[in-house]
Amino acid sequence: MVFTEIISIGDELLIGQVVNTNASWMASELNKNGINVVQITAISDRKEHIWKALDEALERGQIVILTGGLGPTKDDITKPALASYFDSKMVFHQPTYEHIKKLFAERNYPVTDVNRLQAEIPEKCIPLVNPHGTAPGMWFEKEGKIVVSLPGVPFEMKSLITDEVIPRLKQKLALGTIYHKTTMTHGMGESALAELISDWESALPETIKLAYLPQPGIVRLRLSVSGDQDSKLKEAVDEQCRQLGTIIPDLIFGYDDLTMEEVVGNYLKKSGKTLSAAESCTGGYLSHLITSIPGSSAYFKGSVVSYTNEAKIELLGVPEQNIIKYGAVSQEVAEAMALGALNRFSSDYALAISGIAGPDGGTPDKPVGTVWIAMASSNGITSRLFHYGEHRGRNIRRSALSALNMLRLELKLRQTGE
Amino acid sequence: MVFTEIISIGDELLIGQVVNTNASWMASELNKNGINVVQITAISDRKEHIWKALDEALERGQIVILTGGLGPTKDDITKPALASYFDSKMVFHQPTYEHIKKLFAERNYPVTDVNRLQAEIPEKCIPLVNPHGTAPGMWFEKEGKIVVSLPGVPFEMKSLITDEVIPRLKQKLALGTIYHKTTMTHGMGESALAELISDWESALPETIKLAYLPQPGIVRLRLSVSGDQDSKLKEAVDEQCRQLGTIIPDLIFGYDDLTMEEVVGNYLKKSGKTLSAAESCTGGYLSHLITSIPGSSAYFKGSVVSYTNEAKIELLGVPEQNIIKYGAVSQEVAEAMALGALNRFSSDYALAISGIAGPDGGTPDKPVGTVWIAMASSNGITSRLFHYGEHRGRNIRRSALSALNMLRLELKLRQTGE
Repeated sequence: MVFTEIISIGDELLIGQVVNTNASWMASELNKNGINVVQITAISDRKEHIWKALDEALERGQIVILTGGLGPTKDDITKPALASYFDSKMVFHQPTYEHIKKLFAERNYPVTDVNRLQAEIPEKCIPLVNPHGTAPGMWFEKEGKIVVSLPGVPFEMKSLITDEVIPRLKQKLALGTIYHKTTMTHGMGESALAELISDWESALPETIKLAYLPQPGIVRLRLSVSGDQDSKLKEAVDEQCRQLGTIIPDLIFGYDDLTMEEVVGNYLKKSGKTLSAAESCTGGYLSHLITSIPGSSAYFKGSVVSYTNEAKIELLGVPEQNIIKYGAVSQEVAEAMALGALNRFSSDYALAISGIAGPDGGTPDKPVGTVWIAMASSNGITSRLFHYGEHRGRNIRRSALSALNMLRLELKLRQTGE
Repeated sequence: MVFTEIISIGDELLIGQVVNTNASWMASELNKNGINVVQITAISDRKEHIWKALDEALERGQIVILTGGLGPTKDDITKPALASYFDSKMVFHQPTYEHIKKLFAERNYPVTDVNRLQAEIPEKCIPLVNPHGTAPGMWFEKEGKIVVSLPGVPFEMKSLITDEVIPRLKQKLALGTIYHKTTMTHGMGESALAELISDWESALPETIKLAYLPQPGIVRLRLSVSGDQDSKLKEAVDEQCRQLGTIIPDLIFGYDDLTMEEVVGNYLKKSGKTLSAAESCTGGYLSHLITSIPGSSAYFKGSVVSYTNEAKIELLGVPEQNIIKYGAVSQEVAEAMALGALNRFSSDYALAISGIAGPDGGTPDKPVGTVWIAMASSNGITSRLFHYGEHRGRNIRRSALSALNMLRLELKLRQTGE
């Protein structure tokens, strides 16, 4: 097993101005290629801090990848810091200078003295050509350990990782394989789910690691295994996922970070069916989830966000009597909304949500978090009552996910039943 | 100066499955309150790794904040790791158990043995009540240093940072005063904005620092000053903001992280006016933004998400001829959609958006990113053409923000004009 650390350099990370998406992208790419990232560290652009972080990382791991601090301005001090760390003098690197001149010529910029300085690199490094930028990557080796420095500009870093760093590491090291598979579940909280699958979890082979990754409305279950024989690892994990699928068949909506809205969209596309919606408490969020998927116009016809009783009556044809008799948050009104959307949009399916998102509007009978969800199609109308919590944003998200899940289960049944 | 480190615990960070947004949010909040973050470290959920990271962090800094690994499942090992690190036995904490039972009763979930375990905490910590979740925060002190452990669920962590950690740190430590004021702008990119305000920026007193914080569709300009005399610091920054307001009056929609949807909501509430919407390419996102604000039902009547031409004709009364003659993405159709929403919902204002979000659907005449936005009221109809980029998600967000901004400028004019 090869242990790698990532060191991200830049004050903007430490004041929270920039989210460290570079590190997570790199971690994901390295991991896919059998290179285990054991620590990600974000530090300031001060020489002492870079040295200290390098010392600590090299004590633990075999490979360290640094990003950032390679720009042409005074606060970019990674290059001199590495030169002194590796006790190396700076030398002028003609091919890098030619590359910089070529880039500037393409953009019609004049080459300045500052840019000439960018062509100076520590003598002890192998420069990695950066096709998209002026700062080359730098590859150092010392006592069997590897230190790579890359620019922090995301697309420059990404091309260097893909085209230079990973191929070189693969060549250099005898890499093991890591295989992950994530099971996406909806409909049960983390702890209840953990109890339900505890026998399966306890029986997992020691080599397979399970992680619970909860989000509002969703719990992801990730199995990981590492070793040498690619096919057998995959087989073992896939078999465990298959077993899990027999324990909680209805809770699983997909694998490997597929979203609920993608899964439902795929079912609709495959079956050639269309969808519309009527939203009250979710206020457009259900439609937003559905339409966040490219190509959703192939199956989504639209929705009515009915935030008033009048809109429910006028635009969706909900009988006024039902609202008076049962209240806007009721089975009767949710079902009438679904039927209204089905008719108005002439869709094959319609989802409707009526509830109390909060923080206001709750009553003793119908506290904040009470949500009715209905689904209508030519097969009839079904509806279900949900009780969520007090958090407006979470209630909105969980309601929309539950509505999509209702449709998913129906489409799954139709697909396998037909 | 108080030095703080953040340690984020979780394998999902190291395989790149989750981006560490928690750490950047915390860094930003701590920084605003005069607490300098000097390192952010992401590590695996192994006990030895947590210990080692804590050792290193406490060697450098005075405060360490850990997140993650506090869930109820077997892979959540932060609590036992901290108990042994601080040489503390576990004790059952009755108030935490009562809190868990209350949370579960609200959600109609049964309390399990696993949940009972969540009420066990290290004897040497002060538990911090987590109003939104079952895992309490834990506050340890040792030899003048502070270690805080928080759950990794973002909104649980956020409420604990805001309501518990920062107030306690402020009380505990002699912090200097930092005063920030953030000016929220919409309608101009970062570099064009920087040019426009460069004279003002150059004339800023040396003690006042400016940071550009760009997001899709929004550039935040944060002025910071630190020192001892609270009132004078505030005066100086407020004066600079006032000056900035005279240079770019229409670009500024608010201050201090007030959102566009809050600003528009406040104008509507104050004027007693109502709003409706008709959305095509934004697919419900505009309505979702508006209704994400608690109490928005006081002024928002609803919307029609018309994802097909038929829906535009049937539900919004858009003349079919206009769609045939000008296309669905046109001034004529956007204006007819706005008028349709105004009439159907009987609202005072209506916003309509019709555009090509991408990635498909573009033509040479109307490439991806072409968006028409219209606003209707009893004062008439106005509309505007926007050209965004190729990124679907960003096009959706920028379109919705631009629509809200159009209404904001109108409401501002009416308010000051009356």
